[in-house]
Amino acid sequence: MKAEIITIGDELLIGQVVDTNSAWMGQQLNEHGIKVHQITSVSDEETHILDALTEAAMRADLILITGGLGPTKDDITKITLCKYFNTQLVFNEEAFENLKTIFSRFGREITPRNRTQAEVPENCTPLINKRGTASGMWFENNGKVYVSMPGVPHEMKAMMTNDVLPKIKERFVTPFILHKTVLTQGIGESFLADKLVQFEEELPPAFKLAYLPASSIVRLRLTAMGDEITIRKTMDVQFEKLLAVVHPYMFGVDEDSLEVIIGNLLKTKNKTVCTAESCTGGYVSHLITKVAGSSEYFVGSTITYSYPSKTKLLNVPADLLEKRGAVSEEVAKIMAAEALNLLGADYSISTTGIAGPGGGTTDKPVGTVWIGIGSKSGVTAKKFQLGGDRSRNIEMTAIYALNMLRKVLIEEN
Amino acid sequence: MKAEIITIGDELLIGQVVDTNSAWMGQQLNEHGIKVHQITSVSDEETHILDALTEAAMRADLILITGGLGPTKDDITKITLCKYFNTQLVFNEEAFENLKTIFSRFGREITPRNRTQAEVPENCTPLINKRGTASGMWFENNGKVYVSMPGVPHEMKAMMTNDVLPKIKERFVTPFILHKTVLTQGIGESFLADKLVQFEEELPPAFKLAYLPASSIVRLRLTAMGDEITIRKTMDVQFEKLLAVVHPYMFGVDEDSLEVIIGNLLKTKNKTVCTAESCTGGYVSHLITKVAGSSEYFVGSTITYSYPSKTKLLNVPADLLEKRGAVSEEVAKIMAAEALNLLGADYSISTTGIAGPGGGTTDKPVGTVWIGIGSKSGVTAKKFQLGGDRSRNIEMTAIYALNMLRKVLIEEN
Repeated sequence: MKAEIITIGDELLIGQVVDTNSAWMGQQLNEHGIKVHQITSVSDEETHILDALTEAAMRADLILITGGLGPTKDDITKITLCKYFNTQLVFNEEAFENLKTIFSRFGREITPRNRTQAEVPENCTPLINKRGTASGMWFENNGKVYVSMPGVPHEMKAMMTNDVLPKIKERFVTPFILHKTVLTQGIGESFLADKLVQFEEELPPAFKLAYLPASSIVRLRLTAMGDEITIRKTMDVQFEKLLAVVHPYMFGVDEDSLEVIIGNLLKTKNKTVCTAESCTGGYVSHLITKVAGSSEYFVGSTITYSYPSKTKLLNVPADLLEKRGAVSEEVAKIMAAEALNLLGADYSISTTGIAGPGGGTTDKPVGTVWIGIGSKSGVTAKKFQLGGDRSRNIEMTAIYALNMLRKVLIEEN
Repeated sequence: MKAEIITIGDELLIGQVVDTNSAWMGQQLNEHGIKVHQITSVSDEETHILDALTEAAMRADLILITGGLGPTKDDITKITLCKYFNTQLVFNEEAFENLKTIFSRFGREITPRNRTQAEVPENCTPLINKRGTASGMWFENNGKVYVSMPGVPHEMKAMMTNDVLPKIKERFVTPFILHKTVLTQGIGESFLADKLVQFEEELPPAFKLAYLPASSIVRLRLTAMGDEITIRKTMDVQFEKLLAVVHPYMFGVDEDSLEVIIGNLLKTKNKTVCTAESCTGGYVSHLITKVAGSSEYFVGSTITYSYPSKTKLLNVPADLLEKRGAVSEEVAKIMAAEALNLLGADYSISTTGIAGPGGGTTDKPVGTVWIGIGSKSGVTAKKFQLGGDRSRNIEMTAIYALNMLRKVLIEEN
């Protein structure tokens, strides 16, 4: 059984919007044992949408469509689906009731334009959108299933979770797919591959190993498909073989991110963390606090983006800043130590560097970064020489910083 | 002239990686007057890649391909391109020199596996990758151009900018496309559309208006294609007509983000800003400091994620926190006022709320947020009732907060 995703909208093709919907839907389908064969992004043009539907139906059994369901002129998905299925729009009472509920929540009246949002193709089962005004639609035609959903991510996600995935599980018998991923840092993709030659040669045919590099992290994903009991047993054996090879570089498994791993370590130890950020400008704190429940172990931060703020909040001596500059080992260490005192946490992360594009010197070019880690047993700092790209420097500094803290948390037992 | 983008990799289809490359390439091509007809993501399978290449070549003149160029077993783009063009891999001296330079930079020796990365299909012009070990490839075949690039975003971006776009401009005569976008907040898509009925009816045939809703923002994009001089003149007239209608909701134009607009306002006024964040956990600061040159106007922040940190850093009375809770008008106002004092800035943003999923009560359900703005003329605070999704609550709070500051910056003249 194969699925395809079609995302509709000129904004995707001109790059004004990044298609995050497809990746999320791909993840969900995968977890339910459904392989996504292809993702296709097409324009708001009738013939293009019709072609994409015809082609996808030749390859796949399930076609998920997002976008083009708004109330405006450029939203043509509904009428194009009518043409594709040779049917017409009909007024749907349930969709209209939902529309009224949503509008009354905002204290607004329904305009004639909004009323058309309660119309759906005659041959579909409407999927009521509790978060928005555009209904989803479930079609069955010539043994294929088509699902049209709104393009607004949180509306699509709610509809997928509450309506579409349960209906898919009812309608299709799905094979069993299992993924296990190990996250590594500190070794390049090709060096990992050299270490894994024998492992890959000995992999059973149902298994596949993929290398996914991103920033300074390489994720190794082991995938298998087949009979659930056999696959689960073999996966454990194979995954342990993989871990035995990559263990020195491993920092986590599966969808764990560094911030989740750190959160779990801190919770287990019943300890807290704070940050003192300069060049990362709050990004480390943002990563930590993205995690639900982080208030259990995250106390707070100081972001000191100027010399006076470093002196006032973190007691960094003004003459040290003048003499050595903010990007130095001493300043990184003082920031980490003072943050511990100020915020009363068990661990601290400090960052100070030149994110760029301006501010570089011969001694300290753009990409020079010091990261400090503070704990009850003292303060350490490490220098990194990153590249010339501002966002990448912010991102990489945060990843390195979180990984340094992770190592300290593991070592300090 | 049409272009298509093909992104290769199982990680895209199972949703482990979001395809951000396509959007970026789409933007770049668009700015050069090249329309992207379709974006297709396919698996690491030979037949699938071959099919996608054949189909894209039937529709488009230029095919940009990313991914599958690494040194590992699952990277099959190069040998698949050989099959497609009926050619073979040859060792390329220039690519090997580049490989040696990159490896020596990291003090590493070239393994036999890495040496194969200097091999390219015989019929291509190699594009040297100064940031990585995988060369790009430029093919011309039956009047069509194919370009294969690495999937690592920063490597692909450097190659597009330095090599691919200049070569495309040499090789193709491109029509003129112009986009103008206006950013609005505080009005829904369908209400905007009602106000724009007459404007849309009167639009010249070369023009198209698109509605792009995202979080609490709706972007309106006006696009025209044709003769440069005519289009530029007509665009100005049409864009002014559009602005006249949406002016009360407008906060920026084109690719400006709120953080860039605020940065420009602060620079013009020669003023500074700081933040005092609770529920946004550093995300407001991160947005502000993402902008290059933000150290000119951003002083720093306090992130206070616990009661004691709010009391210690921002003098929020402990009994007030006990009595009213952290999520209240009083606390938002004190945080904004105290941040001004502590960090010595001209303006401040404070956020305090329940991001969720836990922590909600009957009085203050998840999504309850107070945002404060401080300035020399006083402190104001506003309550927002957002939804149940943690990341969305963090993101929306940051957008609302930046927009409140923008309004204050414009009003306080």
